[in-house]
Amino acid sequence: MLGPDDVSGLKTLVDQGVINPEEVIAILGKTEGNGCVNDFSRGFSTFAFRSYLQEITGKTHSQLSKQVAFVMSGGTEGVMSPHAVVFTNRVTDATPQDQKSFVAVSGFTREFLPEEIGTKSMVFEVAEAVTQLMDSAGIDDPKDVHFVQVKCPLLTSEHINNAHTRGKPVVTHDTYKSMAYSRAAAALGVGVATRELNEVDISAHDIGHNWGLYSSVASTSSGIELMNCELILMGNSRLGSGEYWIGHAVMQDSIDLQAILRALKNAGLNFEELPNPRELTRIASVFAKAEMSSTGTVRNRRTTALTDSDINHTRHARAVVSAVIASVVGDPMIYVSGGAEHQGPDGGGPIAVIVSQ
Amino acid sequence: MLGPDDVSGLKTLVDQGVINPEEVIAILGKTEGNGCVNDFSRGFSTFAFRSYLQEITGKTHSQLSKQVAFVMSGGTEGVMSPHAVVFTNRVTDATPQDQKSFVAVSGFTREFLPEEIGTKSMVFEVAEAVTQLMDSAGIDDPKDVHFVQVKCPLLTSEHINNAHTRGKPVVTHDTYKSMAYSRAAAALGVGVATRELNEVDISAHDIGHNWGLYSSVASTSSGIELMNCELILMGNSRLGSGEYWIGHAVMQDSIDLQAILRALKNAGLNFEELPNPRELTRIASVFAKAEMSSTGTVRNRRTTALTDSDINHTRHARAVVSAVIASVVGDPMIYVSGGAEHQGPDGGGPIAVIVSQ
Amino acid sequence: MLGPDDVSGLKTLVDQGVINPEEVIAILGKTEGNGCVNDFSRGFSTFAFRSYLQEITGKTHSQLSKQVAFVMSGGTEGVMSPHAVVFTNRVTDATPQDQKSFVAVSGFTREFLPEEIGTKSMVFEVAEAVTQLMDSAGIDDPKDVHFVQVKCPLLTSEHINNAHTRGKPVVTHDTYKSMAYSRAAAALGVGVATRELNEVDISAHDIGHNWGLYSSVASTSSGIELMNCELILMGNSRLGSGEYWIGHAVMQDSIDLQAILRALKNAGLNFEELPNPRELTRIASVFAKAEMSSTGTVRNRRTTALTDSDINHTRHARAVVSAVIASVVGDPMIYVSGGAEHQGPDGGGPIAVIVSQ
Amino acid sequence: MLGPDDVSGLKTLVDQGVINPEEVIAILGKTEGNGCVNDFSRGFSTFAFRSYLQEITGKTHSQLSKQVAFVMSGGTEGVMSPHAVVFTNRVTDATPQDQKSFVAVSGFTREFLPEEIGTKSMVFEVAEAVTQLMDSAGIDDPKDVHFVQVKCPLLTSEHINNAHTRGKPVVTHDTYKSMAYSRAAAALGVGVATRELNEVDISAHDIGHNWGLYSSVASTSSGIELMNCELILMGNSRLGSGEYWIGHAVMQDSIDLQAILRALKNAGLNFEELPNPRELTRIASVFAKAEMSSTGTVRNRRTTALTDSDINHTRHARAVVSAVIASVVGDPMIYVSGGAEHQGPDGGGPIAVIVSQ
Repeated sequence: MLGPDDVSGLKTLVDQGVINPEEVIAILGKTEGNGCVNDFSRGFSTFAFRSYLQEITGKTHSQLSKQVAFVMSGGTEGVMSPHAVVFTNRVTDATPQDQKSFVAVSGFTREFLPEEIGTKSMVFEVAEAVTQLMDSAGIDDPKDVHFVQVKCPLLTSEHINNAHTRGKPVVTHDTYKSMAYSRAAAALGVGVATRELNEVDISAHDIGHNWGLYSSVASTSSGIELMNCELILMGNSRLGSGEYWIGHAVMQDSIDLQAILRALKNAGLNFEELPNPRELTRIASVFAKAEMSSTGTVRNRRTTALTDSDINHTRHARAVVSAVIASVVGDPMIYVSGGAEHQGPDGGGPIAVIVSQ
Repeated sequence: MLGPDDVSGLKTLVDQGVINPEEVIAILGKTEGNGCVNDFSRGFSTFAFRSYLQEITGKTHSQLSKQVAFVMSGGTEGVMSPHAVVFTNRVTDATPQDQKSFVAVSGFTREFLPEEIGTKSMVFEVAEAVTQLMDSAGIDDPKDVHFVQVKCPLLTSEHINNAHTRGKPVVTHDTYKSMAYSRAAAALGVGVATRELNEVDISAHDIGHNWGLYSSVASTSSGIELMNCELILMGNSRLGSGEYWIGHAVMQDSIDLQAILRALKNAGLNFEELPNPRELTRIASVFAKAEMSSTGTVRNRRTTALTDSDINHTRHARAVVSAVIASVVGDPMIYVSGGAEHQGPDGGGPIAVIVSQ
Repeated sequence: MLGPDDVSGLKTLVDQGVINPEEVIAILGKTEGNGCVNDFSRGFSTFAFRSYLQEITGKTHSQLSKQVAFVMSGGTEGVMSPHAVVFTNRVTDATPQDQKSFVAVSGFTREFLPEEIGTKSMVFEVAEAVTQLMDSAGIDDPKDVHFVQVKCPLLTSEHINNAHTRGKPVVTHDTYKSMAYSRAAAALGVGVATRELNEVDISAHDIGHNWGLYSSVASTSSGIELMNCELILMGNSRLGSGEYWIGHAVMQDSIDLQAILRALKNAGLNFEELPNPRELTRIASVFAKAEMSSTGTVRNRRTTALTDSDINHTRHARAVVSAVIASVVGDPMIYVSGGAEHQGPDGGGPIAVIVSQ
Repeated sequence: MLGPDDVSGLKTLVDQGVINPEEVIAILGKTEGNGCVNDFSRGFSTFAFRSYLQEITGKTHSQLSKQVAFVMSGGTEGVMSPHAVVFTNRVTDATPQDQKSFVAVSGFTREFLPEEIGTKSMVFEVAEAVTQLMDSAGIDDPKDVHFVQVKCPLLTSEHINNAHTRGKPVVTHDTYKSMAYSRAAAALGVGVATRELNEVDISAHDIGHNWGLYSSVASTSSGIELMNCELILMGNSRLGSGEYWIGHAVMQDSIDLQAILRALKNAGLNFEELPNPRELTRIASVFAKAEMSSTGTVRNRRTTALTDSDINHTRHARAVVSAVIASVVGDPMIYVSGGAEHQGPDGGGPIAVIVSQ
């Protein structure tokens, strides 16, 4: 994409008949804003894709909203290349395949009130939505879920004032910090649905604090442009078309080269120590989460992102993780989203890879 | 280092007798400022190390300045860990060794006038200084030079006004941009001394523009805290003590994993595709330069660092290159400096590695 | 506005019949991005207002583009409040009034090639466009022109590559700096049209360098979202409706309180030293330009905006000038745009005020 | 000052005999860092002034620490000019004057543990220290206290880990936010000492939350370079030398022009609506605090500083308040410090002015 509103790539594929706009169920994009509170590149991109799809399908705003999840993640620090991945879903009467293969489904929660953002009611609603998505994807075994992307809301000054007017407390008065709480609650919701976590074990205080609780397949990203959660679930299922596989691994810290290699193998790439260039061409997409360890250290060395008041630490984390992945896969057009609260261990995060068969 | 003024690491080594302060010839540090014009962490660190060394040796400011080159490079974006490498030099009457090994020497140019910064007179003075350093290091063959670190000045608003008062033009009125011109001229000077470049082929206009001209061993870094150049030359020589080797390679872009592996091999590490953890412990230091390609692309993908008006592109570049190197060597305490004008090809840069034998 | 895409204020006025969308000729907005290269809030806002007006008028993109100039200026640093001023123009068969009063007209230049941005061909084209606008506004005497807002293009990495492919030089390779050259050329064009400057006196080198050449009524702002110039000219004319007056003054530096007071008086406010609250309610809009002096000083004191590598100096300048004006007029919902090259003297800039009669 | 380490101004005054270094009791400086967590300009400046004073007086670090309070406040956004105000105190045997005049005294609290920062134990210790300072300044009536500057510590990642190691909770895990809690507790401590607040009315939860509790003369500023509080108290007293007066007022918001004028009058300037240039030359120093209202609005207009993830809101606030004050006093060399928690009402802050008689 040449800018947040550049929909020409999708338009070309539609014009060529490669993509049927009626079958689009989700657009997952990396846009080039700061990835923080005042990042309007996400909303701008959503606006542009939505306008284009409304125009081409003749659907209303409300009709399209029920069909397509728009999940834009801001921040292309370092070498990340702005792009969007468009997911389509064709319902056929073919019988389920013998072998499981890649499938993606999308869905939504209801809208949240400002005072619900970052609380247990978000955990619950997201868990419900993920469970329904597993069902519709034909996935019984939670181990077949490899990536669950959730776009969740944040608190602005207006939302905080709104809650106060009604006498309701909000989880934080810091708008930037509200992004973290929202991501945290959504990630715990994914973990509950995939049975990595047990809902009764999660207290309100754990959200955004108890890093021992995490999902290995959650990827959550907050934005100013919505008040509900939009979800995309990816896994391997007998309902898959057989074209792609997905696999994943968990990075233990932001420079965990070995975890990236494990994810590539888990998705089906063949190699010993490092994949060769031909094998790398099988990679269709890479999705990962990034964050700085709350200890301020990496491999026991002091790092400075957490005390940097000029550049938010999520921006440092995205630059680092995307660079390491790009150096292995040989392509900077990958999706790395910042803020991995309860998404992998403290300082680490999940990485998922889709490869063609 | 716990902060720019933390000299406790050096103090401990001096107190333990590991380092003789009289033998210190250079301190090469990564400090945690923004690495740009208003980065006072470099000057603060220099001030602190200098004060400590003056106190412990009883030398005056002027005496110490002739003994020690202080080269502080700002910017520890991503995971880089603030630290300093202290070089000592012991002159012995031992005969030269049969095998070449690591040696480091330091030196200085004269002070420059504001109007000389980024011009051919800097190229010339730096080339002269490097040639003398090769001589004192016992290096005849330029191929034995593996890294030449130069700390060079920049233009502030005061310097620009000063030149104007005297009716002299400066190379740019943009203080941030002056850092690039200064680094560019210094790097070309290194290339001339190592015979990678021919001085007569370099026109004034080439400085900061003709990226076809470059040195593979230059590493230049500008700072507000000096008006001359301070140099540290590293190579392998028969005058070396036999403890370490140095090697290098040139990264072709900022995610060039293979070049990092080549540099490790060139320095003497033994491995096939990826070095194992035991072999990695032999690494003493890694020095590299980082920059974003002037085309705005990496592997033909559009990147956004050059159009980011919130974070300077040198900061993005340092985050990327240091992350990739750290993921390979398993340690974020490495030296990566931004702005690789004429230091390796456009978008790439040299990487040097010191390993114990 | 609650965000760059908030068109609800305009929608309410249209719904109430206060504004006839067919009569809208220009929308001049302050949006909340960084005001620099990667500010997508400008394009987002333009997209949203344009979409709304297309929907309500049934016009095509191309038809609307000929009717309405969208001039969004990014950057609401400090206390500036994001907002848009909508200008409408009703052509009547009433005879011209005896007394001159406020009138606004809008227009466009052709699209520029990347290599033309910041050059004399921009100066010429803008001068032509302004001259035509004066004509259509019924203004003979250039002294009746009080503010000419020009939105002009900038260079991105793509534009620079595009020019290079065709073997054409661009005025600068620094994308942020290209904004300054573009503003500079457009401002000189205004000065030529208002006869403050003589086109033959302006050399290519003067653009962006010779601060002795300036217009007192030009206000130019560059953005990534267009390749032509969009113009809004404001003055007092016999064709005015008699509701408002406009006046202006020139701030000599960014804290020139007296110039603000002069502008208020010039526009028709009545007061001795400071206007009282009742008189201040007559103010409809304030437009001003801001910049830091190229000397790095204000009232002979050293300031640090020009050497700040974290925050661009245009952002500092907008924060300062808008704060000073807001403190006088008692309202932070004012328009202050950064980068006043050739718009008032070095470090200063024009301020225009519209007051109701 | 030409940089954080520029002590030449003080040196000149010492060389000229204007200042006796033995009589220096405090140095209050504005340095040009970001004023946030990773601002090393404060520590650098302190290091430089301390080194100079040690050298000139022959005192040890510890001896000098008991004599001089170094209070450096980072952040010269907008037009603020980096500078330091040096306070000297000469004890004479002269009898107290009939008329009260300006006096300044300095002092210190003990060092705090990380877990104490931002808590009631800070409130208590600061209140104790201020009470002692009032005593030594000969001030009985709290109304004669016009400004109490406190430099207080902040939490770094290391401090937080240190507290955790000992099983102690800290007030926040966000290093930037810890600056606010520390300033808040210190300000409440001042209010207790000046009897504006009653210690028993302040609960732990009020610190950093209940903006109804505030002091009109507190000015607190946090920094990475100390773990205790350093204080400077200014007021009018019969022990004053008779050369200067101090007065103050409270800005209700960040563009409160009338409060600035009230402070000038309170300090003794003579004028009706606006002071004339001659009267302005009597101003020796201006000290003020700045912050953005927690509502995100100024005069009921939405502002964007609180949702700006690129520039911290304290930086916006300093730019605004210093610009407004500079426009009135005609000089940008003033002291405006950010983060006015419990220092004046929400969104406002105290302003104090010293004028010569």
